[in-house]
Amino acid sequence: MAASDRVLSSTLSEPPASPHPITYQWLLPNSRGLDNFLKVMDDASPWATGYPTPPPSPQHESGPAPNPSTSAPDSTDAPPQAPASNSRNGHSHEVSIFLAATESFSKKNTNCTIQESLDRFAPLMAESRRRGFPVRAYISVALGCPFEGPDTDPHRVADLAVKLLEMGADEISVADTTGMGTAPATKQLLRTLKEAGVRNEDLAMHFHDTFGQALINTMVSLDHGIRAFDSAVGGLGGCPYSPGATGNVATEDLVYTLHSLGAKTGVALDEVSRIGGWITGEIGKGNGSGAGRATLSRLRREAGES
Amino acid sequence: MAASDRVLSSTLSEPPASPHPITYQWLLPNSRGLDNFLKVMDDASPWATGYPTPPPSPQHESGPAPNPSTSAPDSTDAPPQAPASNSRNGHSHEVSIFLAATESFSKKNTNCTIQESLDRFAPLMAESRRRGFPVRAYISVALGCPFEGPDTDPHRVADLAVKLLEMGADEISVADTTGMGTAPATKQLLRTLKEAGVRNEDLAMHFHDTFGQALINTMVSLDHGIRAFDSAVGGLGGCPYSPGATGNVATEDLVYTLHSLGAKTGVALDEVSRIGGWITGEIGKGNGSGAGRATLSRLRREAGES
Repeated sequence: MAASDRVLSSTLSEPPASPHPITYQWLLPNSRGLDNFLKVMDDASPWATGYPTPPPSPQHESGPAPNPSTSAPDSTDAPPQAPASNSRNGHSHEVSIFLAATESFSKKNTNCTIQESLDRFAPLMAESRRRGFPVRAYISVALGCPFEGPDTDPHRVADLAVKLLEMGADEISVADTTGMGTAPATKQLLRTLKEAGVRNEDLAMHFHDTFGQALINTMVSLDHGIRAFDSAVGGLGGCPYSPGATGNVATEDLVYTLHSLGAKTGVALDEVSRIGGWITGEIGKGNGSGAGRATLSRLRREAGES
Repeated sequence: MAASDRVLSSTLSEPPASPHPITYQWLLPNSRGLDNFLKVMDDASPWATGYPTPPPSPQHESGPAPNPSTSAPDSTDAPPQAPASNSRNGHSHEVSIFLAATESFSKKNTNCTIQESLDRFAPLMAESRRRGFPVRAYISVALGCPFEGPDTDPHRVADLAVKLLEMGADEISVADTTGMGTAPATKQLLRTLKEAGVRNEDLAMHFHDTFGQALINTMVSLDHGIRAFDSAVGGLGGCPYSPGATGNVATEDLVYTLHSLGAKTGVALDEVSRIGGWITGEIGKGNGSGAGRATLSRLRREAGES
């Protein structure tokens, strides 16, 4: 969590200049993760929201001195009353939690049963919402499990989704972690969720392109009325607990597909393709987006021609 | 054509052992290409069909002596009457021709107008069919052209398809050479073809995955009733005249998708994935098939576990 803390702290103290508000989602493993998250939030709040900054404590108790350019001063254990809102510097912050739809994956990934993870997340969700942070809950291996195979029970997924919504989740992201999801299985899962009373507006779909099915499953979900989709620029991502599972569906591919259908996403494909080319180059991974590579190829030709 | 001649000759003299008959398609650029093709066919026929092999001519007029293990003896200019059939050694052979749906691409690619290419191919098609070789006609840039943009006129494609069928083509392969095809454009094109009287049974769809849309467009085509699809193992292929255009849709991805829908293809996904891994490695290209890579990853894990 130390790295996440630093990213969060930096995001709060040096918010990126953006013409549009950004919503950040912070994946929290447990209540201790929430405590850390809230501490960084509270510490940063006075500064980040423009409150007068108290002088840094001269006797810093432990650890290195905070870097005043990126870290908030640890002035107090009782933070000033922050507004009960997830908004900081015009950007929003949400809390994410992560459960599995199969017992095997739950045990391997989080070392507890599905029921135990529900029990553990209940107080985290309550506290997050009390503090004004919307909660997003991921249901992983919803369309196939590396340990139990491709036939995850859709009723198990629907049951979990209902429980999480009743516990107060604001959105459920149904994740095909392994990429095993097929068009018929996706259709069946969405039908089962609807029959269980879960509304499309409360759902997001989270596809991995491991078997090349992510965009097909996106089309099936669009047909069903889903309008929220997760993706990762350049097709980055993956799952260390899901052997062979590769990246999330690429943002560029998703945006290209949505635009091809006439949808308005507000995303500039050229710009996101440039970002995908840059970040995959920086971390030395191949650019996993066909639409991104083709767009970059076009941009290079246009630059050469002009 | 020299390389094609050698491949054809070798295929005839050393036909691959296969439990199922293979249909070979030979892309011929013009009537001279057909002459070469027929000559190799005729030369090989007596030997390949089990006719008694005449002794090799001791005075070979020009070029290197034929390698008796891979080449047929050039025993005569007047070949024995071969059966008017495309079948050799249990495998079938067909002739393919290639036209463009835009004038710009036709001129850049074949240095003639669309009408000129129709005129040139007419005698080739007549002769091919007279000799018992079915003819497949590709209509390239049917869903976007590198020179004229994404909006290829579907009526132009339909008009070409009708003319080619009237000229005697046995099958039309409608090719999205640039990969610019979208789901709505594919749907519109198929509707226009139907309205022009072209039957689904006379069509194959040929998608490139340049923008990641090949499988989506396959789904649209399946919905429309198309049952023939072109693909290349490992996603190999491309088009030198279509800048930035990458490979054909990968056979592995296509087969995985069709199987996921419950279709029976007769293709063993594990085996074709192994071939894709091998051939892309041999030629030093990345394996362009997500389903192929994921299948190979599974096979490696299974081999490690056993």
